[in-house]
Amino acid sequence: MSDRTRSGAGGAHAADAPRDARGDVARDETARLIAADKVNGTAVYDRAGERLGTVYDVMIDKVSGKVAYAVMSFGGFLGIGERYHPLPWSVLDCDTALGGYVVDLDRRRLEGAPSYAANEDIDWNDRAWGQRVSDYYGTRPYWDAA
Amino acid sequence: MSDRTRSGAGGAHAADAPRDARGDVARDETARLIAADKVNGTAVYDRAGERLGTVYDVMIDKVSGKVAYAVMSFGGFLGIGERYHPLPWSVLDCDTALGGYVVDLDRRRLEGAPSYAANEDIDWNDRAWGQRVSDYYGTRPYWDAA
Repeated sequence: MSDRTRSGAGGAHAADAPRDARGDVARDETARLIAADKVNGTAVYDRAGERLGTVYDVMIDKVSGKVAYAVMSFGGFLGIGERYHPLPWSVLDCDTALGGYVVDLDRRRLEGAPSYAANEDIDWNDRAWGQRVSDYYGTRPYWDAA
Repeated sequence: MSDRTRSGAGGAHAADAPRDARGDVARDETARLIAADKVNGTAVYDRAGERLGTVYDVMIDKVSGKVAYAVMSFGGFLGIGERYHPLPWSVLDCDTALGGYVVDLDRRRLEGAPSYAANEDIDWNDRAWGQRVSDYYGTRPYWDAA
């Protein structure tokens, strides 16, 4: 993930700015480190600034110690019809002006992406499924990353 | 972090077993992937099985996409006097029988480790402090990891 700051946005935060219930930015985020607890619940936008969803959770690869996916909740209404999309961590850009993450994907492209429903059991060990995710986003699978 | 399963514990979980409010183990943890939301709140034990604290949060290095630290809350009573200890991710072993993490540290050693109080501002960008953490645990600093 990379950081970028958009000029001209006046530092205004979107309504879905990252939660900071502890009121302690110093502890939660720095130039380089970010708390997982702060990533979760953060809004995800497309390049046009349209809100696509929020980060539901972060999946950590125990072997490499790397973040494999940010799982984004997407679509639905009041939780009904909502689906979870694992996004390779590398496709998320941090946008401090928007107060969230930006992905180079639009709603239409996300609708065709590998996803699962809230009540669906998913086998995270299924390499074929993991490969499908990385193929979709043009990244290397987390188990094959440098 | 590595996994290990202790034999003879009968699969019983400690009282502080990882929370699984969603009741969906398949989504939260697999042999290789674990949800950050599940790491947070998980108990940390020493080698003797004494409970040292719980994981308060996970700090992710945005540059490498790696987990830099699991921040453990330690000591205190009802939150008073509690301190936060950043532990390099690599010092935590997952113990499925205990239902938590095991570290090769005892209470005494932790008391001397780099830590900060709940109301203390900490500069995560301070490389000298980061170096002190990695030196204490004999690991490489997160920004220097392979």
